Formats: sequence, structure tokens, C-alpha cells
Amino acid sequence: MKNKTKKVGKHTIKFDNPPKIISTYSIVGPKEGQGPLKTYFDEILSDDTCGKDSFEKAESDMMHTAIKSAIERVKLKEENIDYLFAGDLLNQITSSTFAARQLNIPFFGLYGACSTMAESLSIAAMFIDGDFATNVVASTSSHFSSSERQFRFPLEYGCQRCGTCQWTVTGSGAMVLSKEGNFPGITYVTTGVVKDYGVKDVNNMGAAMAPAAVDTIYRHFQDTGRKPDYYDVIATGDLGRVGKEITSKLLNEYGCDIRANYVDCGDIIFDEKVQKTDAGGSGCGCSAVVMAGYFYKKLMRKEITTMLLISTGALMSTTSSLQGESIPGIAHAVAIEFKDDYSPLKK
Amino acid sequence: MKNKTKKVGKHTIKFDNPPKIISTYSIVGPKEGQGPLKTYFDEILSDDTCGKDSFEKAESDMMHTAIKSAIERVKLKEENIDYLFAGDLLNQITSSTFAARQLNIPFFGLYGACSTMAESLSIAAMFIDGDFATNVVASTSSHFSSSERQFRFPLEYGCQRCGTCQWTVTGSGAMVLSKEGNFPGITYVTTGVVKDYGVKDVNNMGAAMAPAAVDTIYRHFQDTGRKPDYYDVIATGDLGRVGKEITSKLLNEYGCDIRANYVDCGDIIFDEKVQKTDAGGSGCGCSAVVMAGYFYKKLMRKEITTMLLISTGALMSTTSSLQGESIPGIAHAVAIEFKDDYSPLKK
Repeated sequence: MKNKTKKVGKHTIKFDNPPKIISTYSIVGPKEGQGPLKTYFDEILSDDTCGKDSFEKAESDMMHTAIKSAIERVKLKEENIDYLFAGDLLNQITSSTFAARQLNIPFFGLYGACSTMAESLSIAAMFIDGDFATNVVASTSSHFSSSERQFRFPLEYGCQRCGTCQWTVTGSGAMVLSKEGNFPGITYVTTGVVKDYGVKDVNNMGAAMAPAAVDTIYRHFQDTGRKPDYYDVIATGDLGRVGKEITSKLLNEYGCDIRANYVDCGDIIFDEKVQKTDAGGSGCGCSAVVMAGYFYKKLMRKEITTMLLISTGALMSTTSSLQGESIPGIAHAVAIEFKDDYSPLKK
Repeated sequence: MKNKTKKVGKHTIKFDNPPKIISTYSIVGPKEGQGPLKTYFDEILSDDTCGKDSFEKAESDMMHTAIKSAIERVKLKEENIDYLFAGDLLNQITSSTFAARQLNIPFFGLYGACSTMAESLSIAAMFIDGDFATNVVASTSSHFSSSERQFRFPLEYGCQRCGTCQWTVTGSGAMVLSKEGNFPGITYVTTGVVKDYGVKDVNNMGAAMAPAAVDTIYRHFQDTGRKPDYYDVIATGDLGRVGKEITSKLLNEYGCDIRANYVDCGDIIFDEKVQKTDAGGSGCGCSAVVMAGYFYKKLMRKEITTMLLISTGALMSTTSSLQGESIPGIAHAVAIEFKDDYSPLKK
């Protein structure tokens, strides 16, 4: 046993008994609910304040609803959930902590910026596989209006946007992970390192996060020995169109051509021409709702059976940017597969 | 195997093979370095800017030094560390992410306010015990001056303090956990739920966090069947003198008398009469440096053999407080023991 681990390569864990995603719930704002993926979301808000008196409270309310609904959907109760892993973009992750305040579930707060959905899934999967829990919940959220006033300016200022700008998704996704069941399972987790190539433009997060995405995706294929065509879908979290272009180009230069099955959650959640979202969606909620809503349903219907989700985060704060710092990025990858026998893992 | 977990009771994990804390490093500011625990810290800064041009950069530099030094102390290298778990109090935990940027180690960012040291130790221990890693690092930091201007006002304003106010510790602690070795081990982890009893006074964090501390300590003893006198030391993270008083009183009312061996890291790191810190120390760095510095050395010298560390966090932001919200609290407990045979666990 000494020093034996479940690692394959330097950055990847392989689960011989993949923790199963037994339930998900996705809730989005009105704008996201008019986008191309509208039929896949479980709940579309008609009012993005959720009847609360601040956008911050609305965001927390969304997450609470997503968590409760994901749990109830599989007839579980709060007391059946061993741990909650959650995070968001707000200072001191108050959307998550105020949602957790209403739940009697042991809570671990996470911060990985927009990478948090894959971060929470990674740690949640390890808690299940390590026999520390029977059922856990992973959840993240973001809200356009709470993010705008925290990271940029209050909406009322009507600031101009540029072509590389992304649009923070209003939404929250929650997923229940469990040991058993005939559901999509997490087969591999590749954990990212922080990468900073000196990008300082806070209106071009895609470029800031792309090197981290490239690094994690490249390591995933190195560690697992898989090729890009193994996956039906390779989905980055919220690089947007600009970051997606950089990522796929850089990977290609490294001899890793993912273009055939590569999408970006931020790119597909909006139709740029209709929703006017410039480079596409972003935010913790982006990969959360696209995974919990769109991809999960496609997996359950067996329209796809293998996918790699790579949530990407830009790790700056307004203070670090005002102090002239560049923007570090991080990306975490989670392989999710729904096969009758998970045979590729048994070889 | 089905649904079998390592849990004892609802909130506690028991480690049959306690993950070992094989190395620690503690670095503190000049004020902390004049306090009662000064001989226990590994490094005392003479300049709390670390030669950087902002307090935020100084804080990140402290954490980087703590992590590097803890690793080097046991002749390990960055590439021997499987994961880094770190967090701090700054918006978007930039102290941690900018420290991680200089390290080529897979990184999980955490946010649990001042509970983060026990949170990171908890998850780190599970990664070791679950065979996901051979060596991991858990680290947190805080800085008086970066916290003051983020949560209260810039120092230059010279704001008045009140008796229940605490003083954010300038410091960072890092700990290396590993599977093997004759070192103090983590035997139990009790994970907290978010508790909010309606305290809104941001100058009285001790009162806001006390209910969470009470809840977690009480559950720990219920889940493990241990009694308070089992531990040589029961140490809360940074309740300060006011929160400590409330905690011990409330626990006593529940029939759990911890007074004989109970200390608070925030209470013992400063001498209130000399350092003029009112109710005592606080911040992520408080329980980090007191654990990594003071208690770890006492364990290694066998001056104590059993302790329960309960780091406590106040989960508000300036935005939530300005919006009239009360302050949710959380507390995570970690039992650390250094016995020749860990015999109490073998019964």
C-alpha cells in the first residue's frame, strides 16, 4: 500500500469505480432562457431578481433552489447528503455561504473563479470514491448583474462593451454524486496548475484563461493515453469564442487536434447575433448550467456517451488588476462517461 | 462495500491510518513576532510589506515562502507535491492564487474565511487517506493591512476600535501531509454546517462565529464518543476572548464542559495589554501560524499528544453586511494526535 495512489501521470486521478452523477438541476435567467439551449434547462426565471431586493440575494436564492431541487429530484433529503461543495464569483463566495446557511449539510466552500464547477465535481468525486461519503452535492452559480457591479461597474452606468467581452451567465447548476446507480460516471479528473502568460486585459478573459485550458487538456491526454477522438464532446467552460480559438490553435501546435469535437459552453449558451453577448457567456454558472442542463440530458439520452468538461477560471480580483497584476488562469478537467459497462476502464 | 463510508456519526470521518503532518512552516509579522508565542514561529518579518509595493502582494509573498519552506524543510521538491489546498480572506483569494502561480503544483482554491486552515487540512487528509495523493500541502494566510482596507477602512483613516474588535493576524502557515512517517497524524475530521444566529455587528466576529464553533465541537464529541478531557488541548481558531467566553458557556449549558483544556488561538497569539489588540487575533493566518508554529512544535516535543483544532470562519462580505444581512459562521474541527501506536484508534 505504501505510497500507492490512484494517480495516472502527474495530474490525473483514475476512478476504477466511477462516482455517478445521479441527479442535476439547472436554473437560468431570462436571457439564457431565450438562447439556443433553452429547451435543456430545468427552470427559466422570468425575473432575474427572484423577487429579492438585491441581485446578490437573487443569486444565492438561485443556488439554493438548484441544490434543493437536485436533491429532491431523486427523492433524497438534506439529511442524506454528506457534504456540499459550492462556490461562486462574489467576494467571500456569499452566494454559496448564504445558500448553505439554509441547508443543514456539512459545507466546504471553494473558490476557483469560473473553474469552480469542475473543481467541485473533482473533489466531490474523490470524497465518494475515497469512501468518505455516500451522497454529495456540487454546485456553483453566477449572476450577470451581481458580477457586473462587483468586477466592472453597476449596470446603470451603461458602460460600453468590446468584442472580446463576455457576458456573465445568470444561472446555477447543482449535481448530486453518489456511489451507485445506472448514471453517467466520473472516470478521470485532471487538476490544473495556475498559469499566467501576462495577459492584463480584463475585457479579454478568454485569452487570459486559454493557456491554463491548453495545459490541462494536454496533460489529460498525456496522463490518460487517450486521444481527442475518444470523446464525443470536449467542452471548455467559458473561454468564449476568442479563448476557444486560441486554445484549439495552441493545442494543435502541440500536436493535439481537438477541433472535430470541441465546443465551449460560453460559446453555445448564447447566440451572439440574437443575445448580443459579444465573445459569449462566462461565469461560474456557465459551465454549471450547460453541464447540468444540456450535456447531462444528452448523456442520459445516450446521444453522447463520453465527454471531457474543462471549466476554466480567471483568478484575478479588482484589487490585483488595479495594482497592475496580470490575470492568472486555471482549468480543471473532469471526464464524464455513460457506458453500460465502463469497459474502457476495465482493460 | 456498498454505501460503506469512513464516517462515524453524521459529520465526522475517522482515519484508521491517520495522514501525517510531516512538516510545517509559520511566518508572522512584526507585531505577532513580539507576542507571547514569538519563540515558536519559524520566521518573523521585520517589514510587513516583504519589500513589495502593496500589502496584498506582501501577503501572497508570505504564503509562497511558507509553502516553499515547509516543502524544503523535509527535503521534498515542488514536483513531489500532488496537490496544494489554499485559501485566504482577500476577494477572489488572490493571496493564494498568486502564490500558486509561482508553483507548478495542481491547485484547489478554498474559501472558508478564517475556518480555511481546518478546511484545507480536512480535505488534504481525505486526499491522502483516499489514495489520491502521496504528499499534499495545506496553507492559508492573512494580513492585517490588506484585511483592514478590504473589510473596514484603509489604515490611514485611523478608525476607532471597540472592545469586541479583533486584530487580523499578519502571517501564513503551511503544512505538508503525507501517508507515512513518525509524525503527528490527523485522526478525525468533523465538518461544520453554516450557522447564523442573527448577529450583524461586524465588530464582533467572535459572537457571530461562536454558534458554529459550539455546533461543531458538540457534534465532534457526539460522533466520536470522546469526552473533552480526552484532548490535552482544545483550540478554537480565532474566536477571540469574547467568542471564546460565549462558546465555553454555551457548550457547558449543553453538558459539554471544555473549560479545563480550552484555548483560543486568537486569544493566545497576542498579549492584549502589550499588543493592544482588544479581543484578540483573527484571520485565516491566526489558527494557521498558531497550529503550524506553536502547537506543532509542542506535539513534536510530546509536550502534548492529543489536540482538537477548530478553525472558525465568519462568512459575510462587505456587500452582504451593507445589504443588512447577518453574519453566518462555520467551524471545522481536526483531531491531531501524536502517539507511538495510535492505540485509542485500534480498540
